[in-house]
Amino acid sequence: MAYPKIPLAQTVVQLCKAKNIKHIVISPGSRNAPLTIGFTEDDYFNCYSIVDERCAAFFALGMAQNLKHPVALVCSSGSALLNYYPAIAEAFYSHIPLVVLSADRPEHLIGIGDGQTINQPEVYKNHILHSANLKLDLDPPKKRRDDDEPVIIKNLENRLERFLGIKQEIQKANEEAINAAINKAIAKKGPVHINVPFNEPLYDMVDKPTVTPEVIAPKMRTETLPLAELKACLDIWSSASRKMILVGVNQPDSIDASWLKDLADDDSIVVFTETTSNLHNKAFFPSIDKLIWPLTESELEQLQPDVLLTFGGLIVSKKIKAFLRTYQPKQHWHIDPVNANDTFFCLDKHIKMRPNDFFKTFLPQLTHQRKSDYKGYWKAVKKHRKEKHEAYLNTIPYSDFLVYNTIFKTLPDNSALQLSNSSTIRYAQLFDLNKTLEVYCNRGTSGIDGSTSTAIGFALASTKQTTFITGDLSFFYDSNALWNAYIPKNFRIILVNNNGGGIFRILPGHKNTDNFDRFFETKHTLTAKQLCAMYGIEYSTTTSLTELEGALKGFFNDSETPKLLEVFTPRTVNDEVLLNYFKFIK
Amino acid sequence: MAYPKIPLAQTVVQLCKAKNIKHIVISPGSRNAPLTIGFTEDDYFNCYSIVDERCAAFFALGMAQNLKHPVALVCSSGSALLNYYPAIAEAFYSHIPLVVLSADRPEHLIGIGDGQTINQPEVYKNHILHSANLKLDLDPPKKRRDDDEPVIIKNLENRLERFLGIKQEIQKANEEAINAAINKAIAKKGPVHINVPFNEPLYDMVDKPTVTPEVIAPKMRTETLPLAELKACLDIWSSASRKMILVGVNQPDSIDASWLKDLADDDSIVVFTETTSNLHNKAFFPSIDKLIWPLTESELEQLQPDVLLTFGGLIVSKKIKAFLRTYQPKQHWHIDPVNANDTFFCLDKHIKMRPNDFFKTFLPQLTHQRKSDYKGYWKAVKKHRKEKHEAYLNTIPYSDFLVYNTIFKTLPDNSALQLSNSSTIRYAQLFDLNKTLEVYCNRGTSGIDGSTSTAIGFALASTKQTTFITGDLSFFYDSNALWNAYIPKNFRIILVNNNGGGIFRILPGHKNTDNFDRFFETKHTLTAKQLCAMYGIEYSTTTSLTELEGALKGFFNDSETPKLLEVFTPRTVNDEVLLNYFKFIK
Repeated sequence: MAYPKIPLAQTVVQLCKAKNIKHIVISPGSRNAPLTIGFTEDDYFNCYSIVDERCAAFFALGMAQNLKHPVALVCSSGSALLNYYPAIAEAFYSHIPLVVLSADRPEHLIGIGDGQTINQPEVYKNHILHSANLKLDLDPPKKRRDDDEPVIIKNLENRLERFLGIKQEIQKANEEAINAAINKAIAKKGPVHINVPFNEPLYDMVDKPTVTPEVIAPKMRTETLPLAELKACLDIWSSASRKMILVGVNQPDSIDASWLKDLADDDSIVVFTETTSNLHNKAFFPSIDKLIWPLTESELEQLQPDVLLTFGGLIVSKKIKAFLRTYQPKQHWHIDPVNANDTFFCLDKHIKMRPNDFFKTFLPQLTHQRKSDYKGYWKAVKKHRKEKHEAYLNTIPYSDFLVYNTIFKTLPDNSALQLSNSSTIRYAQLFDLNKTLEVYCNRGTSGIDGSTSTAIGFALASTKQTTFITGDLSFFYDSNALWNAYIPKNFRIILVNNNGGGIFRILPGHKNTDNFDRFFETKHTLTAKQLCAMYGIEYSTTTSLTELEGALKGFFNDSETPKLLEVFTPRTVNDEVLLNYFKFIK
Repeated sequence: MAYPKIPLAQTVVQLCKAKNIKHIVISPGSRNAPLTIGFTEDDYFNCYSIVDERCAAFFALGMAQNLKHPVALVCSSGSALLNYYPAIAEAFYSHIPLVVLSADRPEHLIGIGDGQTINQPEVYKNHILHSANLKLDLDPPKKRRDDDEPVIIKNLENRLERFLGIKQEIQKANEEAINAAINKAIAKKGPVHINVPFNEPLYDMVDKPTVTPEVIAPKMRTETLPLAELKACLDIWSSASRKMILVGVNQPDSIDASWLKDLADDDSIVVFTETTSNLHNKAFFPSIDKLIWPLTESELEQLQPDVLLTFGGLIVSKKIKAFLRTYQPKQHWHIDPVNANDTFFCLDKHIKMRPNDFFKTFLPQLTHQRKSDYKGYWKAVKKHRKEKHEAYLNTIPYSDFLVYNTIFKTLPDNSALQLSNSSTIRYAQLFDLNKTLEVYCNRGTSGIDGSTSTAIGFALASTKQTTFITGDLSFFYDSNALWNAYIPKNFRIILVNNNGGGIFRILPGHKNTDNFDRFFETKHTLTAKQLCAMYGIEYSTTTSLTELEGALKGFFNDSETPKLLEVFTPRTVNDEVLLNYFKFIK
């Protein structure tokens, strides 16, 4: 086995290994050669080569979303790491662990006009858990013609001793900084940045490692609820007859079934879930937008909860946000070990626990169920909406709405579903999805910029077959995602192509004017056909419901290459169908 | 004519107009609707719709590179503006004026879990001339259920007065902030960021503008050289017998021909130019790498200059940097109105003037020419290299080297040439290019990330036909550049496809191993054929010199669509040919 000669590169690689960071996404470059050599020469690591750093970072994000453990990104100096930024921000708000390892020039070569050199330290400052700027582990060359060594160390022996001392100090400081950064990514779940300066020569190798860095374990706190706090919560909860639980983006299987049952059995509790909540019980309330959208102000006022308990990541539904901001609960508690957003401007308690731990502590202490008609009311609404929803399907022409209905019904059991922003995830919120699916969407920043790359990274890391459903703007935005040698053969893309940003048509803009078509909807006539030919993806297309149903038969079966199904829908019909839906289901 | 109802949007649009910002690159979104409406409804502006913000920003950069005046970028909130960042950094280091107008949510909706919301203020902090974070021009809605107005303004009349007063103050502060930001972009030539918060409703319009913002003119200083400084410079210059002038990235026609002649006529002066210097005289020395690479250490030592005068942007040649860092001049002066890089660690003077103004002040004051054999020596080297260069062409097989030689010879007179990073620009440095060409390359960060988009933006703004020469990694990286409705019909792309990052093969890596092929060279088998079909670009391809010569005939003639010529070269031959070149020309 070979190692990079530069000790700092060995240190970074060894510490990643010690912390079980097994997956390394590398973008080509020269300055990062010591790291590339270190990772690729060690069989412990699975290394992936992705040229476009924007895609590389989202690909790593998708893997980490699945693994719940940091994936490392390695890039060269310069604008390379700026291309990571969209995915870094997504990871920051979605609490997905990533470790960015950016190679850099030594300090004395920065800001003096060298190529591929930018101001790298703290570059992600607004959206990063931790930034470590490592120190060069060898003395930089003499800088100015007239710089002399200070007289005090002119003596050669002193100089050597001093040099070795400084070297050791720098090595220790670097080890601590790397440990601290990676530990933060593991413990707090989010992106961290380690900037690593290297001097030339960059490509030299040695047979044996020359450093043995100290491994400092991350401190994983298990938070418990103080007794007084627990009692206060129990009192409020027990006396409230209208309790709402609202679940944001949430990993599958994170809450024990018994607690879900307890919540489902209580008539004073309604559990509102989203597509991305990954929680299912027939007494819960999915499709929140569908429930709430048609309610009148006076109905909403009557449904104002006493206690709102939230957990999970960001909420997709705009309607529930508007509802709870207007008719604020008397109490809002958020359960999360690290973060609590004051989404409704009335957050009272941030309970710093894992939701499952909270339920384990809390629910067994409840002595009685409060009698309430709260759930009953919502149940009636839900039943009504369900009937109207089914009825509506029979009244409408071929459109996005019917297409999504067909697609969602056809997804294979126990598979994973990745959704792009933004019309795709919004449509998904209106349908009762197959409960055996795992569902994901980049809701941290809700960008359209990296959904395909994320889905591919996720698919690679997952044991399940992964389907990615996307709109056209989002798909073409991230077209370089397909420039990827690691797409699993059973990966499936369903591209709903309505020739533009259809979602803008349901916003209160001025549609069907030239300016609207160009600058809001950004109408186009692109198809994915050529991209599929370019990247070796089996391509098929449909333009009607019958064709779609036919194409979906066998679509998920084993195949030699990944597949993409492009479903064309009528641009100018979709928005009317969707807007009428909300009127119809009233 | 219609205007956005929100006064802040009117203010931004009006101030852009007042400052002659005519070109507006808009990416679709809803939060930026007030700005999109404002710009697109006013015929003064040329608006462009580009979906992928990374491409949009490089496209704007290319336009501004040509216009030397700010181009504005308009995007929605969230990760949109992070995708601008690679181009912002390029603009920052290349001193190209850009005005980023990012829409944002009101402050009370940030950091609380709303969609498409990130921490936007100061997000480009490391690479921006100025960041302005505007204030919402209307009161935010009440935030918490228990917030009451302070007692002192309970009286309705007081409240109204106070409200109007605050509104005026905010408007004034916003006007000043916008003026300051745009003025900085104009005066200092670089990117600035104006973050603009908007509350809903976003799509409302009015018939007449409701604000008349104050226009504050930028202060354009004309720097002069203090007399003592001038005298000191003259003394040093006159007594030096070895003077080197080194020109980095430089706009065409920025130095008067008479000063160039003065410099060319002096035997004690050598003027070293690069492809991107856009300065020509037969007594100057282009192709620096070719000159210096084969020189021995003792030859280099003898050629150490007494005075080094530099101007222009970043230097491409690694060899001249290594030479001047080792054999530092006794004096290094850099002439630029704003910036001076200490590229060789020995900068003595930053002369804050435009180079042409400096020469106008300085050169007429020189009373005599110093006798010197400095230029004579370099002339002999140049002549020798030229002969060897020509001889080498007859000895080598089909390769990148021969391909570039043929392409450069064929470019039409008086056209513009855009080069991608990095092998393309490095090859260009070895050939004597047609002197009527304008040559550009993104050397601020020397990234491969946005060269195609930049070239397209430049071509659109230019009155000249533009040819873009690119390598394959750079081209596929920026493939979304072609998703662009504004590509001029006479735009030409020549893609030299050597199936990977060929430049890595001339670096001291470990080529022809699996790891090298995958993680450094990133070998691939892609072609541009499908992308051209997708985006309506005429495509042709060649695999030999004869085919290339044939294909280039008529390639630049008028046509109905833009054209791309893909030139395949042999991956494993190119590096040997290039490395042998430097031995041969000795």
